Amino acid sequence: MAGQMMSLAALVAARESGRQEPDQMVELARDAARRHDSEIKAFSHLAENPAIPREGPLAGVAIGVKDILDTFDMPTTYGSDIYAGYRPKTDAAIVALARRRGATILGKTVTTEFAYFDAGPTVNPHDHAHTPGGSSSGSAAAIAAGMIPAAIGAQTGGSVIRPASFCGVAGYKPSYRLLPSTGMKHFAPSLDTVGLFAASIADVALFAHLLTGRPLNPEPVEPATTRVGIYFCAELESADPEMQQALERAAEAATAAGFLLMAVSEPEENARARQAHTTLQNYEAGMSCGPDLALYEERMGKKLVATVKEGIAIPPSVYDDARRAAKRGRGATRKLFDEVDILLTPSAPGAAPEGLSFTGDPRFNKLWTLMGTPTVNIPCFKTKSGLPLGIQAVARFGKDRELLSVAMALEQAFAERG
Amino acid sequence: MAGQMMSLAALVAARESGRQEPDQMVELARDAARRHDSEIKAFSHLAENPAIPREGPLAGVAIGVKDILDTFDMPTTYGSDIYAGYRPKTDAAIVALARRRGATILGKTVTTEFAYFDAGPTVNPHDHAHTPGGSSSGSAAAIAAGMIPAAIGAQTGGSVIRPASFCGVAGYKPSYRLLPSTGMKHFAPSLDTVGLFAASIADVALFAHLLTGRPLNPEPVEPATTRVGIYFCAELESADPEMQQALERAAEAATAAGFLLMAVSEPEENARARQAHTTLQNYEAGMSCGPDLALYEERMGKKLVATVKEGIAIPPSVYDDARRAAKRGRGATRKLFDEVDILLTPSAPGAAPEGLSFTGDPRFNKLWTLMGTPTVNIPCFKTKSGLPLGIQAVARFGKDRELLSVAMALEQAFAERG
Repeated sequence: MAGQMMSLAALVAARESGRQEPDQMVELARDAARRHDSEIKAFSHLAENPAIPREGPLAGVAIGVKDILDTFDMPTTYGSDIYAGYRPKTDAAIVALARRRGATILGKTVTTEFAYFDAGPTVNPHDHAHTPGGSSSGSAAAIAAGMIPAAIGAQTGGSVIRPASFCGVAGYKPSYRLLPSTGMKHFAPSLDTVGLFAASIADVALFAHLLTGRPLNPEPVEPATTRVGIYFCAELESADPEMQQALERAAEAATAAGFLLMAVSEPEENARARQAHTTLQNYEAGMSCGPDLALYEERMGKKLVATVKEGIAIPPSVYDDARRAAKRGRGATRKLFDEVDILLTPSAPGAAPEGLSFTGDPRFNKLWTLMGTPTVNIPCFKTKSGLPLGIQAVARFGKDRELLSVAMALEQAFAERG
Repeated sequence: MAGQMMSLAALVAARESGRQEPDQMVELARDAARRHDSEIKAFSHLAENPAIPREGPLAGVAIGVKDILDTFDMPTTYGSDIYAGYRPKTDAAIVALARRRGATILGKTVTTEFAYFDAGPTVNPHDHAHTPGGSSSGSAAAIAAGMIPAAIGAQTGGSVIRPASFCGVAGYKPSYRLLPSTGMKHFAPSLDTVGLFAASIADVALFAHLLTGRPLNPEPVEPATTRVGIYFCAELESADPEMQQALERAAEAATAAGFLLMAVSEPEENARARQAHTTLQNYEAGMSCGPDLALYEERMGKKLVATVKEGIAIPPSVYDDARRAAKRGRGATRKLFDEVDILLTPSAPGAAPEGLSFTGDPRFNKLWTLMGTPTVNIPCFKTKSGLPLGIQAVARFGKDRELLSVAMALEQAFAERG
């Protein structure tokens, strides 16, 4: 590991009590980035002279922004050679929102190409021979390496939850459209979801709260009346044994903390919706990235080209069928959440794989992206070799605060038995 | 009027039979644009040497693209001084799709600033002292003036249906997400819908069919089993008397053609959803255009600045309430379409108002944009002074082909009694 992770809550408290000035807070992050980023390669660009507002709830908070999001004052490459040196005229909506709340954009964090699977140079701070996950590789790694207290990413399949799991940080994919996505390089607009990273659930919830002005700060939870379901789907059987054990330990810890544990079987509609995700994603990628393919195919990665071409070839009727499958899945998911408050699943099939070219598998994430339900990665468990194993918590659409509140309580419970 | 409107169906038939070559077809449009656009000002930019594919279902079809959509080979201004001379790296998804199908992008058509209410220079081809409507001003006017056989626009409130009505052309706002919106300058992403223009319903349906590869070509309809509802909402009372008469004539013509006519009263949920549209739109505009406001306020129009500021000030809880109202409206609208196949309403409160600075009122359109239901403007009736009065037809979400089929039959029926 590079450095100790930064606590957003501690930084904000220090500023509020006058113990730290925004300038000093940002300087801490700049200094950490200067010391560690040559190794971690989390940033594709570091601002030379970042603006440091003195007002606003995020004043002094240095954040990283995934380079799939436009910034008017920094190069925006979408992880692609095509856009090398590209400088948009204006910021993405989420970037402007962060600035309006006082945040300092310390730099752009590495994304895979167009947020798909062709990897960037970032390494996993826990083991530099392992992937940090993708596509929000840099945002997760920059938090894990202690360079910044908060970061912005985005998820179309598993691009927030998976790298958060691999890097051992908190990742939060909000309910669909809770955060604006205007000004991101879209891949599959009906799935593309802006998300957030921080060191802990408490921090990521605080970041969401201060960024949006929404009541997303965790509330105390009553474990005795909170139904936590372990979500049993076919994918679970193919998860690594250590991940299966982590989920068991999570269930034990939740029970010990007094939560109402139950087993929840995946409805058939959800299994079909998970299949439909790929069709939806690729068809929309055919539309959204078709323009780049037509002009710049030779400058695009192989995985990306193959998927965009596959998407262009999908007949509209097949896409429509996939949309109907998604709709049926949403109905089944709504019913599930009549029976249970929070679902727990692995955040990924296992710990970060070795090697930097494969960013890992989103099979535990893409269903929930498609459902639009809020999810978080609860960082806590580890493999014997010391790599993080994250547990994913999911709640009903729109129940973001409830999710963050329970996840924070679970994070504590897991730590006590970790 | 400038010239006779071009028939897309006739042009495509001429090409298919070998009577016309793509080059000649495009030259017809270029010539018409050269002769008429200095008066009509429908184009913000005309391509000097447009690519003319020889293959594809739209080969030889010269189209106009609303300048809210990115084009890599032409300036893209979004109707804004801020973006003067801006040249995106790639095309909008819908533009690339049109090129892939063989269309020639003849030029960019005038949009109001950011597709909001600050008007461009375009005049109404039927009377140059009147507005062509907005925000897809140029796309509608270029069709009406006989410069091109098809055009692309977009609607967030009433920006396809209203200018189509004012200019006496067919306008089609598809079901939400039927056409991709990646690469448009978003105003309110949950509402922004790409739409199409042509001279008649038959032409706009053919354009949609050839553009998407979807079965959107009209089928024969059985009037005796098709339930057509006249939609009674509070707004109807404030429509101009001539528009009220046009709706009555539409009802008479539909009855005479054998359709099953009925009166449908607006459900309370829909009335509330229409109110919610403004909140949703402005909140999202605050997010989407907030970045421009922060950087370029002094270069933005007054109406736009006021709305973006208003949107930024809307509390998230008020936005969430509006989303819930929209959801209830969608439920009520689904139920409506159990009772009726097609709804008819005015496309606008009346004919195009005099003057060029006010682009007209979207109050008959914004509910349906929010519902995501497909709508078309059926051009046909006229005021005593000769200005067009359009009738809007609406169908259930996803029933685009049914809508176009019935609208084509109604267009004929109206013409017989027009």
